[in-house]
Amino acid sequence: MIVELITTGSELLLGEIVNTNSAYLSSALNQAGFDVVYHSTVGDNRARMRSVMEIALERADIVITSGGLGPTLGDFTKEVMADLLGLPLCLHEPSLDKIKCFFAHRHTHMPVNNKKQAMVPEGSYILNNSCGTAPGIVIQHNNKVIIHLPGPPHELKTMVKDELLPYLSKHYPQEAIIVSKELHTYGLGESTVDETLRDILLAQSNPTIALLARPGEILVRITAKANNTTVAEELIADMEKQIRARLGNIIFSTDDKTMEEVVAESLLSNKKTIALAESCTGGLVTSRLTDVRGASAYLIGSVVCYSNDIKEKQIGVPHQTLLDYGAVSEPTARAMAEGVRRLNETDIGVGVTGIAGPDGGTPEKPVGTVYIAVAGKDETTCRLCHFTGNRTTIKRLVSQAVLNEIRNYLNR
Amino acid sequence: MIVELITTGSELLLGEIVNTNSAYLSSALNQAGFDVVYHSTVGDNRARMRSVMEIALERADIVITSGGLGPTLGDFTKEVMADLLGLPLCLHEPSLDKIKCFFAHRHTHMPVNNKKQAMVPEGSYILNNSCGTAPGIVIQHNNKVIIHLPGPPHELKTMVKDELLPYLSKHYPQEAIIVSKELHTYGLGESTVDETLRDILLAQSNPTIALLARPGEILVRITAKANNTTVAEELIADMEKQIRARLGNIIFSTDDKTMEEVVAESLLSNKKTIALAESCTGGLVTSRLTDVRGASAYLIGSVVCYSNDIKEKQIGVPHQTLLDYGAVSEPTARAMAEGVRRLNETDIGVGVTGIAGPDGGTPEKPVGTVYIAVAGKDETTCRLCHFTGNRTTIKRLVSQAVLNEIRNYLNR
Repeated sequence: MIVELITTGSELLLGEIVNTNSAYLSSALNQAGFDVVYHSTVGDNRARMRSVMEIALERADIVITSGGLGPTLGDFTKEVMADLLGLPLCLHEPSLDKIKCFFAHRHTHMPVNNKKQAMVPEGSYILNNSCGTAPGIVIQHNNKVIIHLPGPPHELKTMVKDELLPYLSKHYPQEAIIVSKELHTYGLGESTVDETLRDILLAQSNPTIALLARPGEILVRITAKANNTTVAEELIADMEKQIRARLGNIIFSTDDKTMEEVVAESLLSNKKTIALAESCTGGLVTSRLTDVRGASAYLIGSVVCYSNDIKEKQIGVPHQTLLDYGAVSEPTARAMAEGVRRLNETDIGVGVTGIAGPDGGTPEKPVGTVYIAVAGKDETTCRLCHFTGNRTTIKRLVSQAVLNEIRNYLNR
Repeated sequence: MIVELITTGSELLLGEIVNTNSAYLSSALNQAGFDVVYHSTVGDNRARMRSVMEIALERADIVITSGGLGPTLGDFTKEVMADLLGLPLCLHEPSLDKIKCFFAHRHTHMPVNNKKQAMVPEGSYILNNSCGTAPGIVIQHNNKVIIHLPGPPHELKTMVKDELLPYLSKHYPQEAIIVSKELHTYGLGESTVDETLRDILLAQSNPTIALLARPGEILVRITAKANNTTVAEELIADMEKQIRARLGNIIFSTDDKTMEEVVAESLLSNKKTIALAESCTGGLVTSRLTDVRGASAYLIGSVVCYSNDIKEKQIGVPHQTLLDYGAVSEPTARAMAEGVRRLNETDIGVGVTGIAGPDGGTPEKPVGTVYIAVAGKDETTCRLCHFTGNRTTIKRLVSQAVLNEIRNYLNR
């Protein structure tokens, strides 16, 4: 069944709050097998609200509104809909009693204008609001289902989970449910991933595949529709196998696992300790590695060596190397990695040096030029990378690249 | 002028991402004096997208889309609109060159499917994309203005700020504009700030004042409406004076200036150099200080001393201090600050040690216990703080507290 969500409230149109209700409702309803295909937002204006509702009732089977069920003059969502459907509003005694109790519980009397929250369209089914005073409303009218939910996110979420979803699955059982799995990739651009998977993407039906560009990664999302979880997961597993055959090692994690978590797990399972010498990233890589609980098991320490003097004195980058090749060079990156490994007596040492910008770039070494070295017992690898963006973007992208170099080093 | 925003992308309808673009665009456009009265969201479905665009063109003067300008098969927003308007797509050579440069800078060839990003409707005005490959597009057609923006929030925001708003204010100047100014405070809770400003908050009309709780700060937003910027700014300046008289030094910055930028400016104007010894923050404070351009002028280096061994060997925390008081203690924090100051020969040394959790807490020193020491030539200060939240939240809150300690030290 086609669902349209209508979120109401001028604060949304003024950009004072972000519309999290639409995201929550969409996720919950899609997983329950309903197709949410339109979101609309309209302010506290009766005429515009009515026209938005008319359009929704034409193109959707289920129309869900959120907001405008409060006691104030600016709350009139259910009134506008009832008027559009030609339904009178009647007092719902149990709701009025609940509202009175709600205030009594706070040792205050119910303000008279809260009474309007207990007025509901004739023939409505009531969804209990366990967090507030506005009852939820379900109306079945000319083969359409109209649902009114309160605007405050915690009231809406609780009502959807405890009241709406059970009601919908009982009265409108869906044949199919939806399950998704995300594959996080690093190392290829969106269009290259798109080309690599082109024929699979063209042939997709169920499961479907979506590519999403995120800072420092491309997300491949597999979404399967089936009449039960087991079947959906089988469909996903099969598709995942095909995609892994194409993308291989650039897939660094699945679902919500971050790059730093992947590297941390790999360090732990390989029983390796690590230390970093960070220049252009200014400690960001170490900070990300210490975002993972239990980091002290593998991270011994790091040196943020911003000045050449520190590079030389603290981690022993040879004076001549800095003179001959400069701070942003492969020899310096290698010396940093080897130096910090020696200093902290770890299995792995990492050196990262580059130009985060916006100043300091040259024609030979433009802003975004970065050398990443990883030193182990026997050998040191070094990679030259180029990034674009503002200073913080470049730092973030470099930190992702450094973590990926560590990951590759551990996977050799 | 009436504005409708159309955000495209199935990930929005699946509830996989929250629609922050609509909130950002609404806020920016309202401040510029435009009335955003409808938000619509539609998925990657040509027929439905076309119908949503048709409705928008009927009821709005300016229709702004975001998303669907990428190189993949799922990107077709501008194609659907061009077809609806009956406009052919033409190659925009400068955009193609920019895209080629973008890839050349990464030392890779432009994938062939990126070329479609340079195809624009005949007669379009182009908005430069300084963060990505998809140019923005402005079309003037039958007294309507159609604007296509990229979906990635950082690309969209930069384009709106640098390209779209200047274009709109030049071609469609509005009568009443809205100007806001934000005062960032650190050190008092929301309710305390609310009490301190109570009578001002009750008396507000124009300008209005809003208090917003953000991680590590309370924001005081002053918003004035007037027919020109000068008048609005006068209204704001008067209100700001009243608020500053109440809140004083807890206001650490205005508008978009971050705590790290404030500290960086203070270090520069005081001609002070700094070095940090970070334990529980794992390099986050140093990373934030190096997010500011030109950080090398004041930041010499830092040591992330996660293990006691490093605290002892690299920055000279006495073995006995660690034995007697433990790693999370005032004496250790002080020794870290003084040690790293000595090691890096800086004016200021900072030591931060605590328990980020979720493990490592004790009844005496629960998770969130943190000692922050700042060492100068003559004296060392130390503060004990307590924070709650998950590991990354605590790290972020601690980093804010450390930066504020440095700010207070420099303001003495």
